[in-house]
Amino acid sequence: MKSSIHRKRVDMIIANGVVLTGSPGEAPLQSGALAIDRGKIIALDHKERIESMFQASKSLDARGGLIMPGLINCHTHLPMSLFRGYADDLPLENWLRDYIFPMERKCLSPEWVYWGSLLSLAESIRCGTTTLADGYFFEEEVARAVEESGVRAILGQGILDFPTPDSPSPEDALSRAETLIQKYQGHPLIQPALFPHTVYTCSPPLLQKCFDLAERYQTPMMIHLAETKEEVKEILGRYGRSPICHLNHLGLLSPSLIASHCVWVTEEEMNMLTLHGVKVVHNPESNMKLAAGVAPIPDFLARKIPVGLGSDGCASNNNLDLFQEMDTAAKLHKIHRLNATQMPAPVVLEMATLGGAKVLGLEKSVGSLEVGKKADIIVVELNRPHLQPPLNLISHLVYSAVGADVRDVIVEGRILMEDRKLLTLDEERILHEAKELTRSLNKK
Amino acid sequence: MKSSIHRKRVDMIIANGVVLTGSPGEAPLQSGALAIDRGKIIALDHKERIESMFQASKSLDARGGLIMPGLINCHTHLPMSLFRGYADDLPLENWLRDYIFPMERKCLSPEWVYWGSLLSLAESIRCGTTTLADGYFFEEEVARAVEESGVRAILGQGILDFPTPDSPSPEDALSRAETLIQKYQGHPLIQPALFPHTVYTCSPPLLQKCFDLAERYQTPMMIHLAETKEEVKEILGRYGRSPICHLNHLGLLSPSLIASHCVWVTEEEMNMLTLHGVKVVHNPESNMKLAAGVAPIPDFLARKIPVGLGSDGCASNNNLDLFQEMDTAAKLHKIHRLNATQMPAPVVLEMATLGGAKVLGLEKSVGSLEVGKKADIIVVELNRPHLQPPLNLISHLVYSAVGADVRDVIVEGRILMEDRKLLTLDEERILHEAKELTRSLNKK
Repeated sequence: MKSSIHRKRVDMIIANGVVLTGSPGEAPLQSGALAIDRGKIIALDHKERIESMFQASKSLDARGGLIMPGLINCHTHLPMSLFRGYADDLPLENWLRDYIFPMERKCLSPEWVYWGSLLSLAESIRCGTTTLADGYFFEEEVARAVEESGVRAILGQGILDFPTPDSPSPEDALSRAETLIQKYQGHPLIQPALFPHTVYTCSPPLLQKCFDLAERYQTPMMIHLAETKEEVKEILGRYGRSPICHLNHLGLLSPSLIASHCVWVTEEEMNMLTLHGVKVVHNPESNMKLAAGVAPIPDFLARKIPVGLGSDGCASNNNLDLFQEMDTAAKLHKIHRLNATQMPAPVVLEMATLGGAKVLGLEKSVGSLEVGKKADIIVVELNRPHLQPPLNLISHLVYSAVGADVRDVIVEGRILMEDRKLLTLDEERILHEAKELTRSLNKK
Repeated sequence: MKSSIHRKRVDMIIANGVVLTGSPGEAPLQSGALAIDRGKIIALDHKERIESMFQASKSLDARGGLIMPGLINCHTHLPMSLFRGYADDLPLENWLRDYIFPMERKCLSPEWVYWGSLLSLAESIRCGTTTLADGYFFEEEVARAVEESGVRAILGQGILDFPTPDSPSPEDALSRAETLIQKYQGHPLIQPALFPHTVYTCSPPLLQKCFDLAERYQTPMMIHLAETKEEVKEILGRYGRSPICHLNHLGLLSPSLIASHCVWVTEEEMNMLTLHGVKVVHNPESNMKLAAGVAPIPDFLARKIPVGLGSDGCASNNNLDLFQEMDTAAKLHKIHRLNATQMPAPVVLEMATLGGAKVLGLEKSVGSLEVGKKADIIVVELNRPHLQPPLNLISHLVYSAVGADVRDVIVEGRILMEDRKLLTLDEERILHEAKELTRSLNKK
């Protein structure tokens, strides 16, 4: 080892683990290490080599764990964790119209959104999620919570035709959205976005206004699309076109459109998505719980449509654990097509990492461990009964691991969780506030 | 509080938690407590009342957690944890014939079975499983491991037509089975059983011999039944009858038959199962991963056929976490029938507790927390982001919790895990031996 005088000083070294870079096809590197400086990965090599070249202000010992890219949750509604368990085992329309919308009207306030977001952020960090895409109301309060947490995020203000908990009119919602965009443009971790709710809750002119705003500020536009049969029927009845054909007709399919669900999609519509470079988010657990249907994800992948993985909100899943979501994604398409070779583990892992980064337009900075990319890294404990013997690490991550196996979480070189202790959030306070805020709701 | 001189001395008091008895429809008891003596629950009431009536040699503080019945895994192959990750994303026939059977021929030894069982038992206890039903080879080694672990179990010696890793002939396997039965008859925790593998690997005379042995010793008989379309086709071709009709024709359907999977079952066959009191085990994650199909569980339940939940072995799941299995069971039937009201959370929780006990014939002693029943109890930590706010505990257990949320595990009044530390097993040694035994296998 060189003497310290010749070694380059860096912010952090993570060592003593197996490194899985997440670059497709790349084998795990035993006894690997990473050097991190100013939020970026500046070297990735065998431990001995890294330690001979660098000295670090902070050493993070992976203790035989797996060092891998943080997971990317491409679709969620963070504040909905405060509705967890409030309405289960109901069809989507009933769930939304009779339970969620009335509850949102009754409960939502900036304070509610802020604490609900923090509750979900605590859970997300604990589960190894380093980037997430959120859409909701009072999105500036989501942003405030996200900033405190240190997580990377794309945040879209929710916009609908009718009065919502934060906006008496769609114009007010658009104005809120623009304010959010202006506030967070150029933020190192937060990318503001538009979130028109659906094609059945947003008129064509409103969708056009969202699209224009997104174009003007070069931000993504997120939407729920073709989630249920009922949605398809409703839009067909209203406009004579299916949801995707409707958006295509309006000229709103584009590479900056992030479409969640895409369950009911024909061959012709897949071609439209491909042609216009639309990104898709798969939410298997939410689709199962709300009985929405099974999205044709293997067909999207065969067409090279970028697909990321999403948890959806906690009222329709009911957790934010992307490890469990990977397990479900891998299994759902096997059973649906009665073909056990569908969605093998490596494909699913990519969907939760680099694939998700592509969907969010962040693949140049995150999604895999590469020199020059941002240091968004998690350490997964391996020395646990359910993750042994070490025959196939990718299989273990997809089929056996859970969020609780994550020990350390780093975003842009900053440690958000170390040895399972949250460093940026006051977890005890968050749990207390979540209980207090929901005290008046009916318990079951 | 009475002075200690008037309080009855008992082995253990568990207090300071919410008690969910698991008796259907019973509401959670806030600030509940249980008194345990000689392996049984002797009182269950509010904390103050329990503490005024009893004094205990050991106090277990649930610290605001949920005190509930231990989970019951009705179908697994414990030693297969050593194949975890070895063969994924393959159809059942290919997986079994080209990977699992050859590996079993190559690797299986008493030592392998013993350490593989211990690895799975460590995982099972960590996940809150207090009773399990296992079928495999060298079952006496499974039994040795189970005895050491302190878990409650039904253990069946595997029996097939052809030479197996432990028996050159079916007669040898039958003789092994009888030896196991004789050794464990009357054991407080272990119930020996027969495990003829399937109707396609066991001839009618062999099935008859297993049945006779089971009848003679009054033990259950476990079998894989109607798991895949291919099995149905094969048995139809061979005997002119479907698997269930075949067993019915042989007169082998009975209340002591525990049939795993039952995926491909007609209305007529459901009537046969009902008529003969056959018990069914649902293994949703294994069925999904191997693309076997979706069992008509809601129809079984409508007919009052007893249904329990199983993880199956770790080579087809790939973990033993019944909390995740509950989540999958709740969601799979919703998506399969496009009906979100199917399999609501309380039904699924019952399947993993009292329903499982009924399947294994143990409902008089375990499956719910009742005075006079065995003290098979787990404590689940609740003060975690993904289990808050406390709007609906049963929903949280089914849709949000994972095995890692279990903090304490008690079987027949004996603590197997306390504050996440395994007390009966040497976990470090088990993890070491699991790695050593599989060192020669191909890693991926």
